[in-house]
Formats: sequence, structure tokens, C-alpha cells
Amino acid sequence: MQISVKRDKLVSAVSHVAKAVSTRTTIPILTGIKLKATDEGLTLTASDSDVSIEVQIPSEEAGEWGVTVHKPGSVVLTARIFGEIVRKLAGDEIQISVDDRFAALIRSGQAEFTINGMNADEFPQLPQLEEEKVLSIPSDLLKTMLRQTSFAVSTSEMRPILTGIMWSLEKGQLKFVATDSHRLASRSAVVECAEDLYFHNVVVPGKSCNELMKILDDNQAVVDIVVAENQILIKANHILFYSRLLEGTYPDTSRIIPQGSKTEVVVHSKDFLQSIERASLLSREGKSNVVRLVTMTDNNVEISSNAPEIGRVTEMMTPVSVNGEELKISFNAKYMIDALRSLDSGEIRVSFTGAMSPFVIRPTDHDWILHLILPVRTY
Amino acid sequence: MQISVKRDKLVSAVSHVAKAVSTRTTIPILTGIKLKATDEGLTLTASDSDVSIEVQIPSEEAGEWGVTVHKPGSVVLTARIFGEIVRKLAGDEIQISVDDRFAALIRSGQAEFTINGMNADEFPQLPQLEEEKVLSIPSDLLKTMLRQTSFAVSTSEMRPILTGIMWSLEKGQLKFVATDSHRLASRSAVVECAEDLYFHNVVVPGKSCNELMKILDDNQAVVDIVVAENQILIKANHILFYSRLLEGTYPDTSRIIPQGSKTEVVVHSKDFLQSIERASLLSREGKSNVVRLVTMTDNNVEISSNAPEIGRVTEMMTPVSVNGEELKISFNAKYMIDALRSLDSGEIRVSFTGAMSPFVIRPTDHDWILHLILPVRTY
Repeated sequence: MQISVKRDKLVSAVSHVAKAVSTRTTIPILTGIKLKATDEGLTLTASDSDVSIEVQIPSEEAGEWGVTVHKPGSVVLTARIFGEIVRKLAGDEIQISVDDRFAALIRSGQAEFTINGMNADEFPQLPQLEEEKVLSIPSDLLKTMLRQTSFAVSTSEMRPILTGIMWSLEKGQLKFVATDSHRLASRSAVVECAEDLYFHNVVVPGKSCNELMKILDDNQAVVDIVVAENQILIKANHILFYSRLLEGTYPDTSRIIPQGSKTEVVVHSKDFLQSIERASLLSREGKSNVVRLVTMTDNNVEISSNAPEIGRVTEMMTPVSVNGEELKISFNAKYMIDALRSLDSGEIRVSFTGAMSPFVIRPTDHDWILHLILPVRTY
Repeated sequence: MQISVKRDKLVSAVSHVAKAVSTRTTIPILTGIKLKATDEGLTLTASDSDVSIEVQIPSEEAGEWGVTVHKPGSVVLTARIFGEIVRKLAGDEIQISVDDRFAALIRSGQAEFTINGMNADEFPQLPQLEEEKVLSIPSDLLKTMLRQTSFAVSTSEMRPILTGIMWSLEKGQLKFVATDSHRLASRSAVVECAEDLYFHNVVVPGKSCNELMKILDDNQAVVDIVVAENQILIKANHILFYSRLLEGTYPDTSRIIPQGSKTEVVVHSKDFLQSIERASLLSREGKSNVVRLVTMTDNNVEISSNAPEIGRVTEMMTPVSVNGEELKISFNAKYMIDALRSLDSGEIRVSFTGAMSPFVIRPTDHDWILHLILPVRTY
């Protein structure tokens, strides 16, 4: 293998695939990045047990040179060392040549590195997916949907299926649901796909979703999503992102979302967030992190918290509107803060069905987002 | 005690004194910040065993309101909680009132916190220093001097005296020296002081120097330095910074600095730094972190490094000039990188006196800075 490659393109490709490199593995080949040079260009691949990422650097793109392959071939180079070398090299162009014993000579400017590589034949093969279930979505929208749900994923291995985000598609509407059984976040969006395409119970590990978020661009370039038996593939610009799916049946969460409401409070989400953050300052110290919300007769809302041995905090808030029954309810401040921070809406409606029942948070201007939080029993 | 105080002034004062708050202490009062309200304004104080910091908020300054003291008094409030509260409060003005049992009521906007305080009489007294040895220096210059020497302080408790920076003053010239016995950094500057003022062996703990750096502004406002028996005091704008001094006798470092030189290499410091950084990429992985420098017959310099099992790197550099005997020398890349990063000069002169002797790095345009590094024996 012998190539010349544009430095900044290689740096960017390495930083993308590096997200899939195993840091804790006893299998040396998995600490590496596979480089494969063909007539089309250079492909970099990295893989751990959950996620595989492949990035292509084409020979030329939009008139801009990317890579010249003098001699096709492949090698696996230790990700961390290779990554640091390409980042630190001075020239615009990097020459890489690999001999029969997988020693790679990396040259740029006045510097010349020789590092020991590994046989690319030993690198795991990426899954071959049948591209039957394909849908398309703008990159930034997918990123937003992940951001608005991933925080609610369970971190406990007690119920492994809850450590992922459940993706489903019905009637052209993609829906993400995440819950740790104390709170739930859901986000829907219309996508481009075959009219009758349907899937359910596609549970993508939370860790994969977090890595995927880092790779997705903040623009409206369309990415394709391919859903297969045990894998999901996201195809962005020159990047293929594979993740395994979690096995098992995701619980039916639609049943726990209360339909009507007894008390409705509409608030500016930023003001409400700041009140909750202040109230949680002390309760967080006291470990419980419970804040209390009480509707007052003058249509104000009192947010308070009490941490024994530390102190207490009380704050009066004027919501946009308060309707329905009087209410005293306590909840975990962190769940509320996570939900409010993930929202991009100015105004939200909180619908309560009593002090002991889950309550629902929705933006007032659209139905794409729903958060549900279970209250804490304090009486 | 009862006061109204400008929120941003209080936030800034708390963030300054918080640097002296003990995080690991079993004495509750030392986890606190002391607030003292008098007719002059509000004073905040925090203290651990090494460093004490006091910040004043005057009633009024340059026509701008700072604090109104309705009732003088004092209290100690837990630093972390108090700090978070003042940062998160919404209003521009914060009211604090403290009752006889040291419960503090903190109000701003619609929020009202009540937190338990402690008796200020139990807070340690700050040292009373005799202001005999006083000198003045611009804030940014003192900060630079600390930055250019503190990295060379020893982190080993084997020789405790080397864990500090040695400050000395002679003939109006302030000099900082730090060494961990493998490398040395020294920095001098002319300061304003009484003509005959002299001190030596004033060793300020490295940790104190790091905290002091964070407090000093990046401008030319003059700060006063007061040197006393066991303490040093730095007076910046409304801030008093006290540090204890290390006990013991700092070694006489002037004797180990070689006078002449056998080989002199002049380089652009940035190019040289980048070469050394690249060479250290592999050796750092191989744990030894030794790089090798060889002068070539064509007046170039070869920088190389070899890490068994990982690989090797070689780079040819063209210095501004090379004079004197041929040289092959090995040294710890980290020491060289630390020294080069701390320099602000474009061009430096490295003076060698043989492969086994310490070598000296100086800027070519002034004499205020000197770095010394001991080579590593590799033959």
C-alpha cells in the first residue's frame, strides 16, 4: 500500500472513526484503525462490539483533491498513535507506505515516522445489511431528536432494554422513546420513506446514540437510515455508522401516558427552569433532590425545597396560566431540569392528574415532544 | 448583620475567595466563607492551611454602588452552597440578613433562601504582617513570571523545599527560581522598591503560586508584595492574598549553571517545539520520553526518537545557526516542551557543554529568562 493524502481530510476522518475504537479491549486489532486504499480512494474503519464507523476519503470531490493511491493495499494502525501523528504533522500532504511486514512509513514535511502496523485481514468484517427498510431525514433533525431523548435512557443494567432509545416508524412518522422507568422522553418527526414502511421495537443502545450525535453535522444534509434485523446503519456524507440493536421487547409506554388532566400550568420554560435550578441547589446537597410545587389561590405557583441541616428555599412564580384543581406535588428536580433543558420551546404546558400520578410536559406550540415524570411521594 | 449587595460584585468576590477554601478538611468552619459587614463595606475571607484570601466590596467605588450595610455583623457560610446560590440568583441586588443563631436569609428577585451559618468568631484570624519589605510590580508581569517558572517546581515530597518557587530580590531585581533537580526555570524582572531592599530564600509553595496566578489580572495595574517572616502577602485591587512560606534552605542553584559552551544552536522556538512534540509522540507511549538531538555536518539538526515495539521517528531541522563542536545528546522531551511552551520569545539559543552536562536555553533578545535541563545518559 502506498498513498498520498490531504492532511486535513485524514485528520477529520481519523477523528470520526476513532469514536468507535475500543479503549478497553484485550484484542490488539480492535485498538486500531483499518486503512484500505483502492482505486476509489481511502477507507478508514474502526469497530468495537457495539459500534462500527467507516469513513471514505474519495480521490477527488467537488474538484478538490483528497487522496492519490499509488499502490492499493490495507493495514491496521494503532488508533491513538496514528491519530496523534497525523494531527501533529506539519505539511498539507501526508505520504503513507506500508511494507510486507505491515511497517508503515508516514512522512510529511521534514518528519518521518515508522510505526508497526497489523494485518488488515484480521480486522472484523462490517455487517452486510439488506437495504429494505430505508428512510431519510435531515442530519440536524436526527441530532436534535437524539439530544431530546437520550438523557432519559436508563443507566442501570437491571433492565438492559431500557438502556437504549426505542425507534419506531409508522405512517411516515419516526418516533424515539427513552425511559428509565422514573421519567420518559419522546420525540417524533415526519421523515421521507416508502409509504407503507413500518417498524417497531428497534432499540439502539444509548451509548451508540451518543456517539452518533457527535458525528452528525448541524445542517440539513439528508442522512439515510437503514434498519435491519440486529443492526442499524446511518449513512451520512462519506460516513457509515453501524450500531447493533438491543435484544428484547421494549415495554409499551403508550399506556402509562395519562390522557386528560386535573390541573394545567402553562409557563415560560426558561423562567421555570431557572426556578427549579435554584430550588434544587439545596436539595441536591441533601441527596434527595426533591422540589415541591404548590398552586396558590392567587394563580401563582410556589416552588420550594427543604434540605435538613442545610436550609430551605422558597420562590414564587407567576405562570402564564393555571387551570383546574389545586395541587401540591413533589418531584425529582433533576428529571425536570433534564426535560426543560432539552426543550427548545419558549412556552410549555404541564398537565397534572393528581399528586400521586405521572405528569406530562408538552410544548404549547406543537405535539412532537412529550416528557413524562413520576412524582415523589412525600406525605 | 443585614446588607444589600450588588450581585455581580458578590459573585466575583466569592469566586476569588473560594480558591482558598479547603475542600478536604474535617473542620467545618474552614469549608466556609466569612462575611463581615462594616461601615466601609463587605469583606469576604477564606482560608486553608497554606493560603488565605480576602476580598473587599466597598460601599461605593468610582461612583458605582457596591453594598449597603443596614446593620453591621458577620457570619460564616458554607462556600459551595453560598457560591452556587449567589451565582443562580436572578436579581441584580441580593439581600442578606443573619439572625442571632447564624441563620442567613438570602433574597433576590422572587427567590428566598434560608441557610444555616456558623459563628464568625470561630474563623481563623489572618496573620498580621509587618509591612517592612514592600515592592511593587504590574499584575500581568507577576503573572507571567509565575507562569514561566511554576511548571518546574518539584511535585515530590522527598525534598519539600523544592515544591516551591524561590523568590529573591537584589538591587531592585526580583528573581524567581524553580527546580525539581532535573531541570530549572528562572525569571527576573526589575521592580519598584526601596533601593537597599534585599531578601533571599523566600520560598512560596507551588500550589499557592498556581492559585495566585488565577487571581492576578492580565493588566498593568500595580500589585504590592509584602514579604514577612513566614508569610507573603500580595495586595491586588481589593484583594489580599496571603501564603505561608516553605521552611528550609533553598539550594544554591547558581553554581550548577554552566558558564561557557561547547556547542551553540539558535532556533525558532515554535519550529523547535513542534519538532520535539512530534518526536515525543512515540517515546511518550514507550514511557521513557527521551528524544535525541544530533548536529549534522551540513549544519542541520536531526531530532529523533525510538520506542521499542511502537516505532521510530526522525526529523531534520534547519536551525538559524549551529556553532562549535559536533554533538549527540538525549534529553527528556517533556522538560524541553515545558520550557519552550513557557517562552514568549521567537528565537532561542541552546548552549551545550557536552553530552553529559546540563544545557541552557535562553531567548536571544534578552537575559530575563534561563532554563536548564539535565541530559539523559543513553550510551
